[in-house]
Amino acid sequence: MIDLTIWTLDWVPEGPRGFVRDLRLRWACEEAGLPYSVRTIAFDDRATNHLAQQPFGQVPFLKDKDVEIFESGACLLHLARKSDKLMPRDPAEEAETVQWTIAALNSIEMVSVPWWFLKITGAENDGLTGWMSMRLAQLENVLSEREWLAAGRFTVADLLMADVLRVSEVRAFGDRPATEAYVARVTSRPAFKKARTDQLSHFKAADQKRAS
Amino acid sequence: MIDLTIWTLDWVPEGPRGFVRDLRLRWACEEAGLPYSVRTIAFDDRATNHLAQQPFGQVPFLKDKDVEIFESGACLLHLARKSDKLMPRDPAEEAETVQWTIAALNSIEMVSVPWWFLKITGAENDGLTGWMSMRLAQLENVLSEREWLAAGRFTVADLLMADVLRVSEVRAFGDRPATEAYVARVTSRPAFKKARTDQLSHFKAADQKRAS
Repeated sequence: MIDLTIWTLDWVPEGPRGFVRDLRLRWACEEAGLPYSVRTIAFDDRATNHLAQQPFGQVPFLKDKDVEIFESGACLLHLARKSDKLMPRDPAEEAETVQWTIAALNSIEMVSVPWWFLKITGAENDGLTGWMSMRLAQLENVLSEREWLAAGRFTVADLLMADVLRVSEVRAFGDRPATEAYVARVTSRPAFKKARTDQLSHFKAADQKRAS
Repeated sequence: MIDLTIWTLDWVPEGPRGFVRDLRLRWACEEAGLPYSVRTIAFDDRATNHLAQQPFGQVPFLKDKDVEIFESGACLLHLARKSDKLMPRDPAEEAETVQWTIAALNSIEMVSVPWWFLKITGAENDGLTGWMSMRLAQLENVLSEREWLAAGRFTVADLLMADVLRVSEVRAFGDRPATEAYVARVTSRPAFKKARTDQLSHFKAADQKRAS
């Protein structure tokens, strides 16, 4: 009996493959050894076909028996409570892990995603460049002094931060060797590779169905 | 013996008063009846004078006996685990509370803060307006159907979401009656008023010291 179901889209175009955020949840489950199944909602009317499950029309969302939860960050914190491979049980180390998980969402991604969104949509993004530069430099300083963000070892905070930082536009933003080494270190983990391969296979298989 | 210490700035200019994010932590403590003290770091060299406590140079950060934690969202989740007034103990209701807390940080604030930042710094923000409009309309739909975001009652998710939405530039973004009623409802709580009054008094008192 598999308790966990990760919901994602049935298909996406080439561009976002390998980056759709169900990958974060797959990766966390792989790290923790938690069995999960994957179910899908239709890409074609995705903005409105699952508002009851996700009021912003996004993926992923997670079902854990009777508990349903959206927002990849919230899903990760939920999964992290199921396994100390994702989050230590020591109170100070747990607080540090939550702190860096939220930092990925609200100090780094809060500038990197809008900056990148403006860039890929062809809009002016110079107004965010100074802020982006400052945050990534501050993070480079942190990563120059430690291998992992929290508790002296891999946690869900690294999973999320590396996922935020591995976006090619963010990766190309300035020369930040400690950050680059960190992204390489975290994404060399077998659980990441498995999650990414599985996501790519999932969407690739859908190409054939879609074409037929 | 008071376990909780909220760290903020010793002084800020008029503009951000009533919005500096130590208010979120004061408010949570007031809701939960948790005693706390407030300590400060100097405004004048704030970008670099507390990087050991907060690597992005921001406030607030929280000390709870031996646990130190930054990121207001992470501090709120830490406080929420200390009191069911902030977060229910039922697993489904807890998950719903965490989900909406993260939604405030990563679905609403991720667009509202950059949109507002570009606007107040005089930069072009049209590129984010469509996204902002979509997210706030989706949230208006949610708030049209319920009084509170999670668990059918006030939680830390409402505290955070209302704090995100009460920014005047966000409030003025379109006609969203359910959202406006929600912000009024949440910010009419005595704990919010006390937290806001205390923050304003704290900075006002510093004016006198600064002038002398």
